[in-house]
Amino acid sequence: MFKKPQKEDKFFELFDKVAETSLKAATMLDELLNDLSHSEEKLKELKDVEHEGDNLQHQILEQLNQTFLTPFDREDIYTIAKYMDDIIDYIESTASRFVMFNVNYSTDEAKSLGKMILGCCKELIALMKEFRNMKENKDLKKSIIEINRLETEGDKVSRGAIRNIFNGNIEVLEVIKWREIYQFLEDTLDVCEDVANVVEGVVMKNA
Amino acid sequence: MFKKPQKEDKFFELFDKVAETSLKAATMLDELLNDLSHSEEKLKELKDVEHEGDNLQHQILEQLNQTFLTPFDREDIYTIAKYMDDIIDYIESTASRFVMFNVNYSTDEAKSLGKMILGCCKELIALMKEFRNMKENKDLKKSIIEINRLETEGDKVSRGAIRNIFNGNIEVLEVIKWREIYQFLEDTLDVCEDVANVVEGVVMKNA
Amino acid sequence: MFKKPQKEDKFFELFDKVAETSLKAATMLDELLNDLSHSEEKLKELKDVEHEGDNLQHQILEQLNQTFLTPFDREDIYTIAKYMDDIIDYIESTASRFVMFNVNYSTDEAKSLGKMILGCCKELIALMKEFRNMKENKDLKKSIIEINRLETEGDKVSRGAIRNIFNGNIEVLEVIKWREIYQFLEDTLDVCEDVANVVEGVVMKNA
Repeated sequence: MFKKPQKEDKFFELFDKVAETSLKAATMLDELLNDLSHSEEKLKELKDVEHEGDNLQHQILEQLNQTFLTPFDREDIYTIAKYMDDIIDYIESTASRFVMFNVNYSTDEAKSLGKMILGCCKELIALMKEFRNMKENKDLKKSIIEINRLETEGDKVSRGAIRNIFNGNIEVLEVIKWREIYQFLEDTLDVCEDVANVVEGVVMKNA
Repeated sequence: MFKKPQKEDKFFELFDKVAETSLKAATMLDELLNDLSHSEEKLKELKDVEHEGDNLQHQILEQLNQTFLTPFDREDIYTIAKYMDDIIDYIESTASRFVMFNVNYSTDEAKSLGKMILGCCKELIALMKEFRNMKENKDLKKSIIEINRLETEGDKVSRGAIRNIFNGNIEVLEVIKWREIYQFLEDTLDVCEDVANVVEGVVMKNA
Repeated sequence: MFKKPQKEDKFFELFDKVAETSLKAATMLDELLNDLSHSEEKLKELKDVEHEGDNLQHQILEQLNQTFLTPFDREDIYTIAKYMDDIIDYIESTASRFVMFNVNYSTDEAKSLGKMILGCCKELIALMKEFRNMKENKDLKKSIIEINRLETEGDKVSRGAIRNIFNGNIEVLEVIKWREIYQFLEDTLDVCEDVANVVEGVVMKNA
């Protein structure tokens, strides 16, 4: 039996790499949310990871332009590359809010949302490993379900947190800052779920 | 003469159902905007409708994966399904702001925007009925024009309302809450218009 | 040797026109940011330019529906038309905030961001001129690099400005207003970069 041509594998290798880069970014955000000292330096390191992500996205698009027969729809490769890059961008944007708004403390809900993002990125690595088989097996299904669960859970936590800041005795400027931070944390989880949904769709189509 | 194969009709039947579900959601939002008592229970019911919408979107995507010859471009079916689902999601998000921000009163402008969303969803049902004929007839045109009119009108009402809250003697926290509520009401109308525009584009292409 | 058929040229002519319209809008925004007197009348004129943009987008979509063989992927023509229209819409939205929020003064950072948007729109005109050759030459590359540079620079200026308003002794309502204005200025630069990236991708694909 023949092995698939190498060109095809290239895309999945690059997806693996972006997933690992997203985990690196999520780990740094998690650390920041647990210790906001030296936030400017931490943000600079996170920016470097964001650039790694940009480079990988560029490599995927170049590969796409050089490849005549892609392992699945070009449009879907493009969308997955874009959403994966969005995850890293959103993580950097979330972290940058702490510096931009001069916020020096974290909250239990923010820490908890950071852990969920971390969890999603770990599942994305597992998902990408299974993705190349193009089969709706148990492991693939499990990762998708877990990412969906984390997003739903995150939505609840984030809405509860926003409720608290609006109804607590918090200074208005702090309300504004945290409302935006929670929004970015929630949006990061949303785009993780978007990746999972597109991957699921591709596997269904090729079943 | 032969009738079109059933498979093709399936998509239009599902679009009918999502349009009806969006009207159900819009009706609940309209009711909420006119009576904010028991908003938490009302929000729960609206969440059930949101899940109905998710199920329908999933059915459309499954149908898409099982169908070899689609009645029009796969990409457009996907986009319409996504935007229709966005309408319901935005309606739920709008309603959830009242609970999240603990807002117990409505405004004339919010009620008026709620009526416009209701109007758009009614037109979307009419639009979907005509859509299956794939002809640029008078009724289809009328629905598209009416949705565009409601979006333009809504934009004016929403901008005027925001102007009022920023220039009235309103407490800052209330300004923040209402600025976001108006944004969601406006975004809901925007995505109704997006659906109408994509449908119009598909009919033009197939003319 | 034969010239390309006229139908194909039509798209590039229309892209030229939208780019020129975006420059018109950017010029008006730049003027507004430097002189906020008569802002309501200025906004009305900008709305007329926005309608010109809408008409051009409609013409591109009609052309797309009438053309069997397009000079490059239909999907990409659609995306470029959409993003170009977004630029003009975002410029109008930015300007409208001054009227809506009753803001009668500008800031150095806002003026500087306005100049960057102006710079991007000038480069987009140059880019569209080169685009029709479908070759990755020096001029095309230069325009893309310059737009990317302006977006990165704008991001820094905008983040610094937001930092200032949150940490200065500014009234909370003003903070809210300017936070949103800076967001719109930044988003406008983002969508300019999106156009440049799609054009680059199309040229790479057709290389």
